[in-house]
Amino acid sequence: VRVVIPLFDGMTMLDAVGPYEVLSRIPEAEIIVAAKIPGEVRNDMRSFALVADRWLDDIRDADVLVVPGGTATRALVYDQQLVEWIRAIHHTTTWTTSVCTGSLLLGAAGALEGLQATTHWLELDRLREFGATPSNERVVVQGKVITAAGVSAGIDMALTLAALLAGDQVAQAIQLSIEYDPQPPFRAGSPATAPPDVVDVVRRIALQRQGAAT
Amino acid sequence: VRVVIPLFDGMTMLDAVGPYEVLSRIPEAEIIVAAKIPGEVRNDMRSFALVADRWLDDIRDADVLVVPGGTATRALVYDQQLVEWIRAIHHTTTWTTSVCTGSLLLGAAGALEGLQATTHWLELDRLREFGATPSNERVVVQGKVITAAGVSAGIDMALTLAALLAGDQVAQAIQLSIEYDPQPPFRAGSPATAPPDVVDVVRRIALQRQGAAT
Repeated sequence: VRVVIPLFDGMTMLDAVGPYEVLSRIPEAEIIVAAKIPGEVRNDMRSFALVADRWLDDIRDADVLVVPGGTATRALVYDQQLVEWIRAIHHTTTWTTSVCTGSLLLGAAGALEGLQATTHWLELDRLREFGATPSNERVVVQGKVITAAGVSAGIDMALTLAALLAGDQVAQAIQLSIEYDPQPPFRAGSPATAPPDVVDVVRRIALQRQGAAT
Repeated sequence: VRVVIPLFDGMTMLDAVGPYEVLSRIPEAEIIVAAKIPGEVRNDMRSFALVADRWLDDIRDADVLVVPGGTATRALVYDQQLVEWIRAIHHTTTWTTSVCTGSLLLGAAGALEGLQATTHWLELDRLREFGATPSNERVVVQGKVITAAGVSAGIDMALTLAALLAGDQVAQAIQLSIEYDPQPPFRAGSPATAPPDVVDVVRRIALQRQGAAT
């Protein structure tokens, strides 16, 4: 299984690394990490960086495409080179997937037209711009397109995909290997369960950031 | 809050990136990512790399130390430079933490003597070598030392720590920001809940790898 993960400055690291830790453990998986220019790719908090090993334009096909999100996706939906590359790879894949606002890039590439899809809960409505119907599910499988909710949802998405690619037992063995037996100390992980004042705080901070960026 | 994360070749990426995505969202957190030599640090699967921005020896203190694990920790418990550095930083911290087999490095540095602690479930017994008592809890808080179970447990650990550092509301806002509302497709994340044949498979693969490494 040839898994391609495109990286870009301003991405959220966990969006890529969560699925990576799952998919890289599928027997005989080949993981390819690429960017427009290989080398250091800085994240959206600016305090941590990943390394892309390959040129994006050298990658012409993939069995699995995993598109991470991050604050940069807001601008990258207008990046013709990246969007066209995603569109071209999508035509070759068995599975096209996204984490968080990576779904906005899939949308810009036309891959979500007419589908149900998800993204970070703060950006759900934006999916309509790309002809998709927002879903409140954490992992949404539609034909060969799988979208995951915000950041940490990529782990759940990748375990679902591992089962589709290699069977339930392999997916369970991977889950056990990364000891994914989540026990969050709070029930605050979704706007449906978090205390309303916490939802307000996060929404307000997000709006301030958007204001500062425009 | 000054958070220091040491990186090393042969680490598990999610061990560092999981806590990073939580702790970096604490207001005014400063995250410092360091290695013996700054630059590219390749992970234990060899197919992905992180970037260390600072020299380990330039870092003399931390409010929070987060030590990731990975297959390299087996050898690194004998690495005097790294172990001495951890010991020295531990003397300056408010919180000393580890994810997965990062606890073996804390143990080698003498930080677990007389404490309950955890690590990846496959390595739990090794904690006794360092005077610690293995615990089956996912996150173990003992004085200022917090150890987390395998790989993905770093996210739960960091949310626990975020609440201790900045209060419950901040921790909940971070949990909501990374949409950490886990919904694994299987109940296979711990040896207590995974199907017995899956536990056997993972144990056998781990033993084969150890055999190959020695």
